[in-house]
Amino acid sequence: MSAPEPSAQVGGAVRPATAPLPPRPSTALLTDRYELTMLQAALASGTAGRHCVFEVFTRRLPPGRRYGVLAGTGRVLEALADFRFGAAELEWLAAERVVDAATIDYLAHYRFTGEIWGYAEGEVFFPGSPVMVVEGTFAEAVLLETLILSILNYDSAVASAASRMTSAAVGRPVLEMGSRRANEQAAVAAARAAVIAGFAGTSNLEAGRRWGLTTIGTAAHAFTLLHDDEESAFAAQIASQGRGTTLLVDTFDVRRGVTAAIKAGGVELGAVRLDSGDLLSLAQDVRHQLDQLGATATKITVTSDLDEYGIAALAAAPVDSYGVGTSVVTGSGAPTCGMVYKLVARAGSDGALAAVAKTSAAKVGVGGRKGAARRLDGEGRAVEEVLVVGSEAAITDWAEDDREMRALHVPLVVEGAVDTRWTGAAGVRLAALRHEASRAELPRGARRLSADEAAIPTIVRELV
Amino acid sequence: MSAPEPSAQVGGAVRPATAPLPPRPSTALLTDRYELTMLQAALASGTAGRHCVFEVFTRRLPPGRRYGVLAGTGRVLEALADFRFGAAELEWLAAERVVDAATIDYLAHYRFTGEIWGYAEGEVFFPGSPVMVVEGTFAEAVLLETLILSILNYDSAVASAASRMTSAAVGRPVLEMGSRRANEQAAVAAARAAVIAGFAGTSNLEAGRRWGLTTIGTAAHAFTLLHDDEESAFAAQIASQGRGTTLLVDTFDVRRGVTAAIKAGGVELGAVRLDSGDLLSLAQDVRHQLDQLGATATKITVTSDLDEYGIAALAAAPVDSYGVGTSVVTGSGAPTCGMVYKLVARAGSDGALAAVAKTSAAKVGVGGRKGAARRLDGEGRAVEEVLVVGSEAAITDWAEDDREMRALHVPLVVEGAVDTRWTGAAGVRLAALRHEASRAELPRGARRLSADEAAIPTIVRELV
Repeated sequence: MSAPEPSAQVGGAVRPATAPLPPRPSTALLTDRYELTMLQAALASGTAGRHCVFEVFTRRLPPGRRYGVLAGTGRVLEALADFRFGAAELEWLAAERVVDAATIDYLAHYRFTGEIWGYAEGEVFFPGSPVMVVEGTFAEAVLLETLILSILNYDSAVASAASRMTSAAVGRPVLEMGSRRANEQAAVAAARAAVIAGFAGTSNLEAGRRWGLTTIGTAAHAFTLLHDDEESAFAAQIASQGRGTTLLVDTFDVRRGVTAAIKAGGVELGAVRLDSGDLLSLAQDVRHQLDQLGATATKITVTSDLDEYGIAALAAAPVDSYGVGTSVVTGSGAPTCGMVYKLVARAGSDGALAAVAKTSAAKVGVGGRKGAARRLDGEGRAVEEVLVVGSEAAITDWAEDDREMRALHVPLVVEGAVDTRWTGAAGVRLAALRHEASRAELPRGARRLSADEAAIPTIVRELV
Repeated sequence: MSAPEPSAQVGGAVRPATAPLPPRPSTALLTDRYELTMLQAALASGTAGRHCVFEVFTRRLPPGRRYGVLAGTGRVLEALADFRFGAAELEWLAAERVVDAATIDYLAHYRFTGEIWGYAEGEVFFPGSPVMVVEGTFAEAVLLETLILSILNYDSAVASAASRMTSAAVGRPVLEMGSRRANEQAAVAAARAAVIAGFAGTSNLEAGRRWGLTTIGTAAHAFTLLHDDEESAFAAQIASQGRGTTLLVDTFDVRRGVTAAIKAGGVELGAVRLDSGDLLSLAQDVRHQLDQLGATATKITVTSDLDEYGIAALAAAPVDSYGVGTSVVTGSGAPTCGMVYKLVARAGSDGALAAVAKTSAAKVGVGGRKGAARRLDGEGRAVEEVLVVGSEAAITDWAEDDREMRALHVPLVVEGAVDTRWTGAAGVRLAALRHEASRAELPRGARRLSADEAAIPTIVRELV
């Protein structure tokens, strides 16, 4: 059994792209209709140019979860570059009369020229954490709501679940293979989010291509069933893929499957895979059998409907790696993060930026632009999430003055220009490293799987 | 309050496309790596050309669910047309050494030339229902596994949840507005699946463009907060969108919001929207207030974290339509269907088609190509799902001979050619009609929301 150090895996699952990517379609219609009708009304009433600050945050963590993991930031920045209303999009909007001619004209020239700050991708977050802050005219910023939320809500749901799985695996590699249980494009994003949260690779080829992720996979039961018998299937796989491959041994009878696998691959066989049954006892039996056959270096990988609890239950089993499908791509019971995109400040008719918030009975917000920092104790452990409401200058001064505080916002888009450090394969690598560091900073016990409150409280301060 | 007949809505939410669609990217890498490594090994061992039958089915429904709803079939057929390995895909596969040169050469010329049958999209299904059957060489059919499952698993999860919501709404329109709580591309598919299950429209513009769905939406809290006060926001919206629009009245105080709404829009105001609070009592208060103001035709739409239970709880409230977000795009607790793609028959070395199945302890399959039919009683109510294992000729003869049986398989792809009836806007319309008819055929009580077993049992018969 090998149990590589987490830090050896993290980011190591990502390499630079090896072939050019094909052009990507416009993302501009991945949007709710009301973003465009609001734009039309604001253009007509003269409020479309008002300076606005929108904040992305979640009101609560899923029940029992102690922290969330931000993922999707790099994808937001990649999608922003493709957020263009081209001829095809404009023609459809006009034909459908979604908006009027003045709005079509505005959309034809749409470019986001404002600023976006956010938590670095991979950072952990808590209720109220302003994980992204979008600043610009109402017109420029409102159009991005749906796309930003779609990306952050799904990717963060996956990363939040995936982080619990890599915690539970205590250094053993965890591999993402859930593509078939998620929408075909969501699957690509899920693979990326899982790697950010420490997964060692993915079965998804498109994710491999797009972000240089390590891809994995050898064969399914169908390959064994295709052949006249298990022996000829194993021989065919070894002949094509070499002795380092992983043979799936549970199509007919596991004990006979293991015997056939070592007969075909010899003691140099890379691994055997178990995809059904009682994995705890099966893994023990198979390890014993492999060792008896002299295949002491042949690994065991398990892949049957695992989630973080299933992984934890196998901690004492002789398992070398885990393949996770459904549970990671569906957020293990929490398939979306519930993040919202709220207007927190805007210039009024007097031109001055003023805090705004919904104030009726439920879903009440805290108005005002917010900075964020994590307070750490003497050992570098997170103590609380501190949000400060104030002017940008006041927030900056405050964050620089207080050494106990780790400031959380980084610039993502400056005057409309995307900071490309956060995109592509390099962005995924940075995010994986950020997640590892951020999670290590959590208080002791925060990584337990048992249901509990948020690991640290969120405090809101007002700065003048 | 208006409560249109379901049949007036169904399919009416779909119209032909009004503008040409942009070209779509290749779907060929939306695939697990092992599909390609299996192909390589099978090409090398001479088994790649063996004739195979793969079946898509689910082993169980989500806990408590009485039926599932098949959705995604049309999208599978659309994605199949784009399943081509172009220069960009092949270059990446070669650079990454995912497969060898012989396999790259095979992929460069890949076209699916086989047959696909399936349940008509929109049809209800039960455990074991063979909702899709793919027949062709191993090489041609194995490559489609991941893509087919991704699409059917997600789309059917959404449609299965959506069908419960439209049942609970008892004819009142239900509108899909969950794009922000799903991956940005999954959101487009979710809108389509919801409409198939009876939703009257969606907020998602791309779904509107792609399949001619009715799109809806007017304004969010941000629009009210953007303005100096609620009155000027409402005036701006009315000026731009006319009195038929829907005003969101719960930003500050609902009672004052309703007063301002009618002041701005007059008694011709289309609707007011409530997005927070205790919707049951709020709707009653608002209806009373609207009526007192003479706005008896102004409708009330509600949109706050509704699911099928929330909708049912509002059955007696004066609500005219429901907007549903998170719960529909995440399958209301069941975000994937757990469908699998299993090899059930293949030609052996003697050339004869033989049934195959995994036989070890768990996930045991039933081998053999299967036909399917729903047995109906004298009143046209479904009694059982009958699967018959046998040759294609035997199945066809049987289905034609038995008048109690409604045969469930329709041809989707014949000798590689997609039957385009099932694709595009026309396909969505057909699927919505099929769903309405299929659901109406379920036994009494099958549409109750309370947890129970599958509404009808699944029976497997062997034909010689």
